[in-house]
Amino acid sequence: MGTPASLMLRGIAPLEAATNDEISVFCDARHAEAFACSRAGAIITTAKLAEQRHDCGTLLIARDPRFAFAAIGLMFHPRSIGAAGISDAADIHPSASVGEGCRIDRGVVVGANVCLGEGCHIGANTVIGDGVEIGPHSVIGSNATVSHALIGAGVRIGAGTVVGGEGFGVVLGATGLMCSAQVGRVIVGDNVRIGGNCTVDRGALGDTVIGSGTMLDNLIQIAHNVRIGRNCIFAGQSGVAGSAIIGDNVMVGGGVSISDHLTIGANARIAGKSGVAQDVPDGAIVAGYPAVPVRQWHRQNVALAKLLRKPAADAG
Amino acid sequence: MGTPASLMLRGIAPLEAATNDEISVFCDARHAEAFACSRAGAIITTAKLAEQRHDCGTLLIARDPRFAFAAIGLMFHPRSIGAAGISDAADIHPSASVGEGCRIDRGVVVGANVCLGEGCHIGANTVIGDGVEIGPHSVIGSNATVSHALIGAGVRIGAGTVVGGEGFGVVLGATGLMCSAQVGRVIVGDNVRIGGNCTVDRGALGDTVIGSGTMLDNLIQIAHNVRIGRNCIFAGQSGVAGSAIIGDNVMVGGGVSISDHLTIGANARIAGKSGVAQDVPDGAIVAGYPAVPVRQWHRQNVALAKLLRKPAADAG
Amino acid sequence: MGTPASLMLRGIAPLEAATNDEISVFCDARHAEAFACSRAGAIITTAKLAEQRHDCGTLLIARDPRFAFAAIGLMFHPRSIGAAGISDAADIHPSASVGEGCRIDRGVVVGANVCLGEGCHIGANTVIGDGVEIGPHSVIGSNATVSHALIGAGVRIGAGTVVGGEGFGVVLGATGLMCSAQVGRVIVGDNVRIGGNCTVDRGALGDTVIGSGTMLDNLIQIAHNVRIGRNCIFAGQSGVAGSAIIGDNVMVGGGVSISDHLTIGANARIAGKSGVAQDVPDGAIVAGYPAVPVRQWHRQNVALAKLLRKPAADAG
Repeated sequence: MGTPASLMLRGIAPLEAATNDEISVFCDARHAEAFACSRAGAIITTAKLAEQRHDCGTLLIARDPRFAFAAIGLMFHPRSIGAAGISDAADIHPSASVGEGCRIDRGVVVGANVCLGEGCHIGANTVIGDGVEIGPHSVIGSNATVSHALIGAGVRIGAGTVVGGEGFGVVLGATGLMCSAQVGRVIVGDNVRIGGNCTVDRGALGDTVIGSGTMLDNLIQIAHNVRIGRNCIFAGQSGVAGSAIIGDNVMVGGGVSISDHLTIGANARIAGKSGVAQDVPDGAIVAGYPAVPVRQWHRQNVALAKLLRKPAADAG
Repeated sequence: MGTPASLMLRGIAPLEAATNDEISVFCDARHAEAFACSRAGAIITTAKLAEQRHDCGTLLIARDPRFAFAAIGLMFHPRSIGAAGISDAADIHPSASVGEGCRIDRGVVVGANVCLGEGCHIGANTVIGDGVEIGPHSVIGSNATVSHALIGAGVRIGAGTVVGGEGFGVVLGATGLMCSAQVGRVIVGDNVRIGGNCTVDRGALGDTVIGSGTMLDNLIQIAHNVRIGRNCIFAGQSGVAGSAIIGDNVMVGGGVSISDHLTIGANARIAGKSGVAQDVPDGAIVAGYPAVPVRQWHRQNVALAKLLRKPAADAG
Repeated sequence: MGTPASLMLRGIAPLEAATNDEISVFCDARHAEAFACSRAGAIITTAKLAEQRHDCGTLLIARDPRFAFAAIGLMFHPRSIGAAGISDAADIHPSASVGEGCRIDRGVVVGANVCLGEGCHIGANTVIGDGVEIGPHSVIGSNATVSHALIGAGVRIGAGTVVGGEGFGVVLGATGLMCSAQVGRVIVGDNVRIGGNCTVDRGALGDTVIGSGTMLDNLIQIAHNVRIGRNCIFAGQSGVAGSAIIGDNVMVGGGVSISDHLTIGANARIAGKSGVAQDVPDGAIVAGYPAVPVRQWHRQNVALAKLLRKPAADAG
């Protein structure tokens, strides 16, 4: 099949499903078979992967095809909040300020002195507590609860997420357990993404901070006074205990637990399911429970398996 | 106490609490004491356990007493959605189609072109997004959010669960992090059970799929493009990362994390708290972090303990 | 700076931010620098820590400064439910009984025969199912769902939490998977604290119980028929599987998983991220996956690291 003189593309699709007016991406050699059989009108790939067998007339070579495809995908599917407007069945406090072009769905509660920037979307039945400020073009899903928070611009918060809940400040005293006052805030930078059913607690005295550009998946716990840097990635079901400090560009795998008061250096990477109980230096890659440098973890696992292959020595 | 000529039973109860018009079950030798003292009118058990000391006049012998008791329990407590009817305080889009005998509680939002089969129950303040289809006799709890989804018949989804949220498609590009477009759906088969406060993300390009008869407990994360087979069981707080494929009849313990793009074979079993970082073959039983065959895991744990009992050798 | 003859304090603040009319706390030597530079009007600390360099004229010496500060903090920030009143946009069943001085926000649903004690606060869009009883001065956050439950006095439940959902009683039978009837309740003692986006399932036949004074952080799963004692502490994302019994004063770290039917003795402590697969005796401290006594766990980790330092021996 030759390269066509011109090509009209109407959407994005996976290799297997794409038709001749759709564009797809091939960035993983494991999908060579799907690449070979794909009927996509165009496929983004690397120079090297383009050498694999294929039947597509238009390959677009990119250094980072995943990124290129994501960028093209957002052109076909630009984010939109739908039609602006405030539902009659939303309850907006008279002292709240709502920017131009906001969409506020039914059942939403917007408390006193709330300030919403322009072009925000608040999903149905979400509750925004008194004094919360949300920057322009931020989107909050349905059934979420946001209080005691300053939220930046372009932030997206998923359905069911709770931002600004009371931190877990349990103190053991002579007379039993006691919860200390939690009077801080949550500060969320610009372009932060928080998934669904997460919990981000307000600070105890100071603030809980999530730096600009940081991305959180679903069911994540961020405890009081945690400070997360910019452009971090947290995969699903990870959690950070109280007062931990996370540097910029940190990547945290799914199901990771980070203990309280730790410092995780910038550019560190934490493998999925790790239990981090010590500080992690800048740029380090750790894994395991307790988390250790990832090479040590792999060698430990090999050594453990080896132990089992020497039953005679063990018995001796 | 002799066997009565006839017996009227009015309900089910545990061994300790059952009265003489209730039926109970004894299926675990650890409860022998409760069996001995039980005043239940009838007790389901196995032929072997029936030999234990007891004072109950009517033992019902079953090969699988747990199953028998569950079946009888559902006769005493048949599932019911209560009185059909649509609350005046629900907001049903005029283009939505609602089947006969549905119950839609107050504060519910049903979006455009939604299609609900007959006999469904949508709990209070739940939000059903545009275009969602839900098969007959499905039940969705309160404060849930369902979008971009095709849901089968007889499905039950717990309170607070988010189905169809945006997948976590973070791409690292030259200019920082970027979230790729997420345009797929969630396909949920018939008789699926999803617990409370779960998150099931829509597919990125293709679909996220949960096969018929699969049962999910609470606080479970199912990422974009995951495909789960039929009749699987996922215990609480387990999670599956993006694009993993889970075969039929797989059993996943509580707190398990399954990494992205893995394949878990049919009939595999994954012990609670495991971190699965490699494919699991059909029928395999794995445990540990990283997960290994369960027998290897047990032997590793023994070998580790043994290491500690040889301090002299270590010091040499 | 000398001790002033009298001092008017107006609030609490962290060492770094406190001004001369605020009180702060210094209870961790790692914050010595902040102590040295603090401009707080008064600082609570221990006799020993008071010897560190500082510039504060009024040190208050306490045996447990954390507890003293928490107690003082609650004087400055007494808990309050705000103005009493029932929103016109709440839906209270005529058969429900609502005590004096309750605050019920908009979108709340209160079912038939619900009984709310005096001075309760039910947050916006929360759903209280039929027959639930809640003791006086309890507070339930927004977007929560509570059913099949008896809740004590002074209880606080966070936003998005689901209490009384159906337990995960999956039974494997000849004809496939089946969910057994779940007909029990959740019994929550006095002064219990449950965080945000938790799930506490109703009992299958008997009840799920959380003892008085117990504190749960966020995103915690408590399965059916679990019985938790008094004054326990559960950190974020921990979970307890069905029918486990937890004694009084147990401390459970973040991300811990406790298997079903286990018994955890009183005063036991479970380190963060542990996977508990065996009973834990009274007063024991365990860690690891599988959890072992904490000293054994530390020695195992050392032994594992040692293995790696003997490559010659391994090769031999």
